[in-house]
Formats: sequence, C-alpha cells, structure tokens
Amino acid sequence: MVTLAASLPPLTQDELKKIAAYKAVEHVQSGMVIGLGTGSTAKHAVDRIAELMKQGKLVDIVGIATSTKTYEQATSLGIPLSDLDTHPIVDLSIDGADEIDPDLNLVKGRGGSLLREKMVESASKKFIVIVDESKLVSHIGGSGLAMPVEVIPFCWSHSLVRLKALFAGAGCVAKLRTEGGGEAYVSDNRNYIIDLYFEREIGDLNEASDRILRLPGIVEHGMFIGLASSVIVAGVNGVTVKTKKKGGELGIDSFSYSDLRNGF
Amino acid sequence: MVTLAASLPPLTQDELKKIAAYKAVEHVQSGMVIGLGTGSTAKHAVDRIAELMKQGKLVDIVGIATSTKTYEQATSLGIPLSDLDTHPIVDLSIDGADEIDPDLNLVKGRGGSLLREKMVESASKKFIVIVDESKLVSHIGGSGLAMPVEVIPFCWSHSLVRLKALFAGAGCVAKLRTEGGGEAYVSDNRNYIIDLYFEREIGDLNEASDRILRLPGIVEHGMFIGLASSVIVAGVNGVTVKTKKKGGELGIDSFSYSDLRNGF
Repeated sequence: MVTLAASLPPLTQDELKKIAAYKAVEHVQSGMVIGLGTGSTAKHAVDRIAELMKQGKLVDIVGIATSTKTYEQATSLGIPLSDLDTHPIVDLSIDGADEIDPDLNLVKGRGGSLLREKMVESASKKFIVIVDESKLVSHIGGSGLAMPVEVIPFCWSHSLVRLKALFAGAGCVAKLRTEGGGEAYVSDNRNYIIDLYFEREIGDLNEASDRILRLPGIVEHGMFIGLASSVIVAGVNGVTVKTKKKGGELGIDSFSYSDLRNGF
Repeated sequence: MVTLAASLPPLTQDELKKIAAYKAVEHVQSGMVIGLGTGSTAKHAVDRIAELMKQGKLVDIVGIATSTKTYEQATSLGIPLSDLDTHPIVDLSIDGADEIDPDLNLVKGRGGSLLREKMVESASKKFIVIVDESKLVSHIGGSGLAMPVEVIPFCWSHSLVRLKALFAGAGCVAKLRTEGGGEAYVSDNRNYIIDLYFEREIGDLNEASDRILRLPGIVEHGMFIGLASSVIVAGVNGVTVKTKKKGGELGIDSFSYSDLRNGF
C-alpha cells in the first residue's frame, strides 16, 4: 500500500470524495427509494447512481432530493424524483458531512441544506455518510468551522444573541451567514442561517440540541446526532468504513486502494 | 355580588375579555417596553394602552408587536413600535390564550401567531395572560380544540404523520389548517400550521415539547410552558388573578365586580 501511494501522484481531495461516493453507491439496489444528499461529495454519488441507471445496472430507483440544487442535478440526469409525502420511508440516504466525531455524530449544513437533509435522513432506514478524511474531528465543533443553525428571519439578531449566550461556556462566536453582496443568505425554506463557532467542546450533544431547539425562532441545527448508520472515509492511504452495530458498537473495516482496485 | 349579578344584564364574553385586559394594563408603567399580544382579548389591551397614552397617563411606551395584525393596530393607534433586535428585554407582555391549565401552562396560537408571541413573551420579565373563564382547562388539550404546531411547508404532510404518531397514545388527530378556499393557512413567517387535537392527556408537557421540537421540519408549537407569570381570568362573578410566587406556588386573588367598580 505504501509502495502504491509512493508510485502514483497523490489523490486530490475531490478524487477522495469520489472514491467514498462510489463505495457508498455499491449499497444502492434496484427498487430502492434513495435520499440524495447535497454538496460536493454527495454530487458524485448522484452522478454515479445516474450512470448505473443508464447502464441498466440499477432500475426502478426513486430519488428524494435534499435541496433544490440536488433536485436540479438529479432531474438533469434523468433520475425519477418523489418526496417524503409520497414516500415517507426512505430505504437509503447518501450524503456528505462537514464534521464527523468518533461516535458518528455529524455537523452538516455548511452548504445551507441542513433542514431538508435532516428531514430526509431521519426518515431513512439506512444513512451512509461519505467524506474525505479532512472531515474527521475529535469532537463536534473541533474543526473550528461553522455549526449552522437555521432561524426564522423575524428578529434574527435576537436569536443570534440567545444562541451565543447558550454556549458562552464554550467560547461561542455567532455570525449571520451572508452572501457575496453582504445580504443575508436565504435557505431553501426562506430562512436565515446563523453559524456558530466553538472554541471548546460543548458537552453533551443531545442536551445541546434540546437547548437550541427550545429557543423560539430556531428552526433546526446542523448537528446530526445518532442518525448515521455508517460512514465511508476516503483518505490518502485507503478507505475506512465505520458501521454502527446493534448495541451501539462500531465495526471498522479498512481497505487499501490496491484492495479496492478490483471494485472499480 | 350575587345581587349585582342578578340586577344587571349578564356580561358578554367580549365584555369579560375587556375587563381582564383593562385589569392587566394597570401593570403598565411609563417608560416600559411592552409586548403587545394578538387576538380578540389582547386587542382590548392594546386599545387601552393607546387610550391611556392619549390621556397622558402613560408616556414613553415602546411596543413590540407579536403579529403583523397587532403591528397594524398599534401603528394606527399611534403606539411607537420597536422589535426584539433593538429591545431584547421586554418589561411586560400582555396577551390572551386559548387554554390555561391549573399550573398556568398555556395553549396559544389558534390565531396563528404562536411563534412571534413565544419569541416576545419568552424575552419578557413579566408575562400577564388575560382570558375570560371559558379558557380554563383541567389539562392542556382539555378544551378539545386545537393545539397548533408551526411547520415548514416542505413535506408538511410527512410532518403531520410524524406529529400524529408522536401522540398516538393520546388519541391524537392532526389537521393542516386551511383558509376559506381550502388553501393552506400561511403564518406571518410563511409557514403552515398543523392543528393537533387530543382525546386524552398527553402526559409530561416538557417531554411532549421536546419530542415535538426534535422532529425536523417543526418550527414551534403552541404550548407555552412555564412562561406566564400571572393570569387574569374574568368570569361572570368577578375577576381572579393567579400569580406565580417564588418557589412555584400560586397566589390567588379574587375580586367581585363591585370591588372592581372603583378601579374603572
């Protein structure tokens, strides 16, 4: 494996994302209702599903898009789409994440689609998360990057102050997400996003979640606690698959790229 | 008191609402930031505040409206308005309720403004609830009328199914709120309202609240748990004021209409 890595140019981050995405799509079977994620990694999975459908290797697939962006991508690729109203149970969702902690808890939503992603993925029998290894963190917030919270536009700055106060002990900084012109970013649901940054660990995640959700004016947050059933991590030396077993233990399988070569 | 009640025509429900509203406005002092409620009872309080301002008995009042409807009413009456972004701490809010249980927990939002009401009232140092006695219930849901939940329009019928399932044990019926033409009612925040009806008690209210809020796609619900600092109930025989004391006990004062006559 070391020899292989040394003899080939290093894989780019985008190639790693693609490797994780393709590996996840191996779990898609004909006849399934599939939750289609959003973002640069999930995009590869949607592309791959469409490719296998064109080749006739997957048939009778129904996709549930987690954003208007993914809806457009899937439509342009000819994947038939439906929604949770018609298909309240999703067989499998595949999506990226911004952070993954050792217990497979996630931060998602830096792309702004956290609410629809959470609706679809929490309705899924199986949820496979696909990431390159840069997304692994020792604890939620540990990347130093944003944990997004979707809020009602009405009195958003009041909500910002209340969110910040909630995590004062973790050295929380809160910022309204803006777009190019300095205008507030507007989500698919026409809400705003407040990005939280933590200097220190925020403690028990379920408790943190409830405290956020109890604030009126908050729609949803980007912590996905206990939702992932497995995680596929593509790193420069190979792919690691972590799967939640009954009882909450993790099963961990590692593959070098020479192991995987036959699968592609 | 019995003599008085017998010698005068009975008070109408609207008169009772007005009596409770006027009694609450006695707590408004010059210089206060006041949360202005929404609905047929709160409307009387807003009218009364404006009247006292015109008479010069109240000066330097800033109102925070809990709905676009109240915003319009207060503006037309000349009450200066602000918002929570500018005034994050509200001195006193006065608002009606659809149900009040013996511990001063409320159901609100049959008028559709539950989210903004909860934002303003949870930011208030004091929150006085004003009702006629028809709103008293033995337990939340006990009136048989709606407990409203504000939801994101995206996949609302999926949210409806999940809400109903949450309270299956209480014989829950869930309905999308519609307007005259059968179209979905749209809140001030451009969301939908799902009305829940319970056949039986729903158990611990804080737990019920958390379970609702944890569903993705849910913005807020109409249970106001532990928010009211006092309740003014106008009944055919007089006014009862219930006030939360330190330690959670209730202080109860009753006044007959002959007692109150001097106050008007």
